Amino acid sequence: MSPLGPGSAIGILGGGQLGRMLALAAARLGFDAVILSPEDDPCAGRVAARTIKGAYDDPAALAALAKACAVVTYEFENVPAKAVEILTGLGCRVAPGAKALAVAQDRVEEKTFLNGAGAPTVAFAAIESAADIAAALDILGAPALLKTRREGYDGKGQVWVESAREAEAAFKKIGGQPAILEAAADFIRELSVIAARAPDGEIACYPLSENHHQDGILRRTLAPARAAPRIVELAEVIAARILTGLDYVGVMGVELFEMADGRLLVNEFAPRVHNSGHWTADGCEVDQFEQHIRAVAGWPLGPTTALAHVEMTNLIGKDADAWKALAAEQEARVWLYGKGEARAGRKMGHVNRLRPLKD
Amino acid sequence: MSPLGPGSAIGILGGGQLGRMLALAAARLGFDAVILSPEDDPCAGRVAARTIKGAYDDPAALAALAKACAVVTYEFENVPAKAVEILTGLGCRVAPGAKALAVAQDRVEEKTFLNGAGAPTVAFAAIESAADIAAALDILGAPALLKTRREGYDGKGQVWVESAREAEAAFKKIGGQPAILEAAADFIRELSVIAARAPDGEIACYPLSENHHQDGILRRTLAPARAAPRIVELAEVIAARILTGLDYVGVMGVELFEMADGRLLVNEFAPRVHNSGHWTADGCEVDQFEQHIRAVAGWPLGPTTALAHVEMTNLIGKDADAWKALAAEQEARVWLYGKGEARAGRKMGHVNRLRPLKD
Repeated sequence: MSPLGPGSAIGILGGGQLGRMLALAAARLGFDAVILSPEDDPCAGRVAARTIKGAYDDPAALAALAKACAVVTYEFENVPAKAVEILTGLGCRVAPGAKALAVAQDRVEEKTFLNGAGAPTVAFAAIESAADIAAALDILGAPALLKTRREGYDGKGQVWVESAREAEAAFKKIGGQPAILEAAADFIRELSVIAARAPDGEIACYPLSENHHQDGILRRTLAPARAAPRIVELAEVIAARILTGLDYVGVMGVELFEMADGRLLVNEFAPRVHNSGHWTADGCEVDQFEQHIRAVAGWPLGPTTALAHVEMTNLIGKDADAWKALAAEQEARVWLYGKGEARAGRKMGHVNRLRPLKD
Repeated sequence: MSPLGPGSAIGILGGGQLGRMLALAAARLGFDAVILSPEDDPCAGRVAARTIKGAYDDPAALAALAKACAVVTYEFENVPAKAVEILTGLGCRVAPGAKALAVAQDRVEEKTFLNGAGAPTVAFAAIESAADIAAALDILGAPALLKTRREGYDGKGQVWVESAREAEAAFKKIGGQPAILEAAADFIRELSVIAARAPDGEIACYPLSENHHQDGILRRTLAPARAAPRIVELAEVIAARILTGLDYVGVMGVELFEMADGRLLVNEFAPRVHNSGHWTADGCEVDQFEQHIRAVAGWPLGPTTALAHVEMTNLIGKDADAWKALAAEQEARVWLYGKGEARAGRKMGHVNRLRPLKD
């Protein structure tokens, strides 16, 4: 494809912090960002050239977006398939495409695709009933993790099942809907790789991130993660298999389990910029947000080398009340998302703390 | 002053590229930017939470800005004094203040202030007539540079006078208005220091920039400039004297002549973020735009150390047509301002080319 020139508009489905940081990156390169969001005053809208209010599958809103934009991307993986269909039907390019969304939206599809692409995961079983859980536990072992097939993020919609006796209650707890049961991964640590693919197939990976969660939400990322060269190489091979298998265009976050025996298993991938890649905004020449914009705009990918060690800490809910102390901390690069109310569990900002690479 | 908290709005007088990059920096820290500009579609407005259209001295527009914002700053030094008066009268804080503007707007006032503050300049004379020019040439020597006292930038409104015979024609050429005649500075090179001052008097300077002009417009900046420690120290002392003398809050660009005899003379200062500081956006942890926002918001200043060597090149007029080649250049960080027409002499963007500090 021909690269988009200055003044082109890039549409973003979703108006949260990821859309906001994508809009900022687009502006640096001379693009206008146009946000589509059902919210009244999405925080991404406050840095965008234009905001269209509407449901993600509202044909009129999508038509306005398609008319305004040379390409449309998204900041979350639960974009309705219908939205992409409508946009594509209007002749509007959507990146990453429909296939990535379809696979990412269904955990059984996702794991099936991953293993088929040579990106191994834990063993799993599709679940339609409590009886399925009991049967699957025999094969997967206990405990195992029950998750809804669709929706759910940051640990929502999932529950550990310790034994067959808990099957009924667990299935009820996740709403009795189609699910996946995943074998427990006896991992040493959680890593992720932020990878990008351009329309011509070029792939670039950032150094690995080491991620620490709490209550199912990412709290802290250390990057570049200390890792054996073999592990780095394996992560990049896995990411490339996923990106190529989906004919993907844009940035993707691939969450990995590092196992004691040296294997890397894919936990899941997010077809978008990723919280564990926020460190790149202060630690790399070209961050994940600009990289995504470059890819969807058909620009060659930028360099992904780290310029510093970064410890990224999310500011969740009341954490953001510490902004005054953070503002005074010399090594803290503060990012605040311009969201109003600091509800419990809501991501309000993050902090990148830098130290020189040579340390 | 108490630092501004998340969600506060910062007003910016002016809607050009400097306002745009200030708005982007404000957004990173969770602030809303509100642009006041007489233009129809100012490029800064496309990344701002709100744009107010109006003349800079329009009382209604200024009242709306004062109502919306916790502090107002500006991106250009020719803000009418009346605008600051009106805003201040409405109880709105303006930073940097009225004194910096008044001094910066009149070249005779500026040079008088600088020399009084211990920041030496070339010898100069106030000019009211062609006869004044002839008389001043006797003292300053020829050639000397005639500039209007007010307005004029990027080399506009100035002319070299080679001898008393040219006095009449030169005075006519700059419109027969109050002027300044400056002795020629036999400088080795042009440097600048980007310096910031917080409300509590804290001062921070970035490493020196070495600047190369063409047709009176900045073309290229190299930073950190190779310079003797004594020169760096002297530049910082000079900047501190200016900032303190003006009780300044915000970022300032101080243009310096490095003389063969080791002196530094101040050419002029700009009471705003400065083109020769654009390198900081890719070369420093905290760039001049965030630094300015931090200062006017009452946040402590951030670190100013360089993370890389940067060569900044302005994209002027048709230069921006090379965007496709620049997008493909791995070491080029491209900034485009989202301006429409690439008129001759118009700053359309800039490129920061990075190389490691150790080189």
